[in-house]
Amino acid sequence: MTETRYGLQVTLPIPYAEALERATAALKQEGFGVLTSIDVRQTLKQKIDADFRPYTILGACNPPLAHRALSSDLDVGLLLPCNVIVYEDAPGTSVVSAIAPKAMLAAAGGSHALDEVAKDADIRLRRAMTGLEAQARPPA
Amino acid sequence: MTETRYGLQVTLPIPYAEALERATAALKQEGFGVLTSIDVRQTLKQKIDADFRPYTILGACNPPLAHRALSSDLDVGLLLPCNVIVYEDAPGTSVVSAIAPKAMLAAAGGSHALDEVAKDADIRLRRAMTGLEAQARPPA
Repeated sequence: MTETRYGLQVTLPIPYAEALERATAALKQEGFGVLTSIDVRQTLKQKIDADFRPYTILGACNPPLAHRALSSDLDVGLLLPCNVIVYEDAPGTSVVSAIAPKAMLAAAGGSHALDEVAKDADIRLRRAMTGLEAQARPPA
Repeated sequence: MTETRYGLQVTLPIPYAEALERATAALKQEGFGVLTSIDVRQTLKQKIDADFRPYTILGACNPPLAHRALSSDLDVGLLLPCNVIVYEDAPGTSVVSAIAPKAMLAAAGGSHALDEVAKDADIRLRRAMTGLEAQARPPA
């Protein structure tokens, strides 16, 4: 797993459609349901006739965590749901990247209660990402 | 308009449902389509049986800007679409708040090309918010 400026990223030796499925399953295991899904390629084609690689933005939400966060800071909805992107790097290779809640919230400057929720979300998303990576690793 | 830690916020003397409609229209005028909409109250009720105020998270996207941003930094999808939240402050009073792209991207640390896009998105969202505010002001 690589930490990017604001994300947690894994590169998987599997096709895009499979990466999308596995990412959704890994999120579910950590209590994150996918509330929204944006097919970026299709959207850009439809709206401005631009060609783009296969790319999806998933909006993942862990309802108990979201409720705690919103109860602590009503405006935190601006940072919800947690985005997870899945895109094709090359045919047969895909990238899955999740927002790093701790980094984002630290940048945004949250309260202590909010920090605790972000930490919890961060741990879960990290676990989902490392799980994806481990699953895709060929057996030794 | 108030600038919060990571958002641009207006309080409007109109009911929630009307605020939701007007916010969507104001975004459209600035070239932002609403790609996703999360009814937070309904979601929290359904998923964890928690009661919450009327609250919606809109995912707003300006396709040409999104395309420029993604072409400059593939991982910027983690920050897209631009969130706009609408919630009931009190019956007859609503809050609309848009993410401040410039502030978020500065925090996340973007490239120069990305900064330019964020600046453009920021100007448009600011205009949408001040437009909403002006529209709701009673005539002098």
